[in-house]
Amino acid sequence: MAFKNTPEDVAKIRKVCSALDYSAALVFNATEDMVRAACADARAMHYAAVPVFPCWIPLVAEELKGTDIAPQLVVGFPSGGTASIIKQKEAEQGILDGAKEIDMVINVGKLLSKDYAYVERDIRGVVDVAHPADVTVKVILEVGFLKDEDKAAAVECIVSAGADFVKTCTGFAEGKATLHDISLLKELADGRIKVKASGGVTTLEDGVAFMAAGADRVAGRNPITNQLRAMGIFSL
Amino acid sequence: MAFKNTPEDVAKIRKVCSALDYSAALVFNATEDMVRAACADARAMHYAAVPVFPCWIPLVAEELKGTDIAPQLVVGFPSGGTASIIKQKEAEQGILDGAKEIDMVINVGKLLSKDYAYVERDIRGVVDVAHPADVTVKVILEVGFLKDEDKAAAVECIVSAGADFVKTCTGFAEGKATLHDISLLKELADGRIKVKASGGVTTLEDGVAFMAAGADRVAGRNPITNQLRAMGIFSL
Repeated sequence: MAFKNTPEDVAKIRKVCSALDYSAALVFNATEDMVRAACADARAMHYAAVPVFPCWIPLVAEELKGTDIAPQLVVGFPSGGTASIIKQKEAEQGILDGAKEIDMVINVGKLLSKDYAYVERDIRGVVDVAHPADVTVKVILEVGFLKDEDKAAAVECIVSAGADFVKTCTGFAEGKATLHDISLLKELADGRIKVKASGGVTTLEDGVAFMAAGADRVAGRNPITNQLRAMGIFSL
Repeated sequence: MAFKNTPEDVAKIRKVCSALDYSAALVFNATEDMVRAACADARAMHYAAVPVFPCWIPLVAEELKGTDIAPQLVVGFPSGGTASIIKQKEAEQGILDGAKEIDMVINVGKLLSKDYAYVERDIRGVVDVAHPADVTVKVILEVGFLKDEDKAAAVECIVSAGADFVKTCTGFAEGKATLHDISLLKELADGRIKVKASGGVTTLEDGVAFMAAGADRVAGRNPITNQLRAMGIFSL
């Protein structure tokens, strides 16, 4: 499938862009210039959010002021092994700094150790500080480490803890989101939480396919911006 | 070079073991069983420390009680992009939980943006809570992202902030420690701080080579334990 610049394809593309978390600057070596450039791309392409490591949230909040693009904080990212009390404090600080959405990593090791009480409590600590501030909480599973039964247990922890989304991957471990994962998570979520596809969405075509499989949000990096630029869809 | 079970080689090997941070359980999917197994290996092989993600420090402190092996906390790991105030709180919590050493990641992005005041302050925040508790602070550079001039600037920030060690890599980004890096960091440190080689130390032979190049500590994973087991040097 290759998109054309037809009204029908442009509508599909706009739908992906408006659901896209643009993670171009979510890299360990992100500089101030890279963070500013990611925000400029997000404004030009009307993306949904710009995720960055916590130290960059104040800059992103400034760069996105006056838009409806969300400065997105990552918490316990990408390891998930941060102490629960610190995940909560990281969320609090990020909200003070201007974050409007939080993508936290589930404690993968505790999940695999079947300590579900810990996993649920860990998520609830973040939800407790995020929701009163109208901040959405997405919980990242790192599907590459999980069997389908682990994914099912994780979804129940996320729902019980009151979070808003289940998300597939950090992009920093082995394993990418597959269309199977999205269909499975959508089924497991059963309308109780939304689903975000991340890790494996490289092109606009991937974005459309993952959304068709049930993803409410997708994450993408520079190749998607480059593809949009080449198509000349948005005026820059 | 292949080691034999001669007194001379065994002495070299023991020296590596006593300087080894055993990172077998420093993985995103570490389970309780893996953490216990890493501690058992460390006790059997007389390693220096067991680094784990923060949620596992209480368990490691319990498992290593009565030994002189250090429960080792990682801070802002592996991204380095954690907010400074959260790195400090993560250090405080880890010390409460039983950590005796801290390996923190430098803010690579701020370093590459040449915001050295930020980088130094970020490190000092951790040193300020660690040193009063007699906890050593190592600062990880992630050399794969840095030019030699960045490494020099980083060493000056680390020395000014009062930390104890410069360390090469997290093992979670591209780029491994090279013997060049160790010689260079040793020269830049000029006796003011110690040097730890991590990322690139796979075998006992690597450990000896990195220590000969000037490393005071090295980090290694399971292959080193397997090698020691195969040689039958330590009674298990």
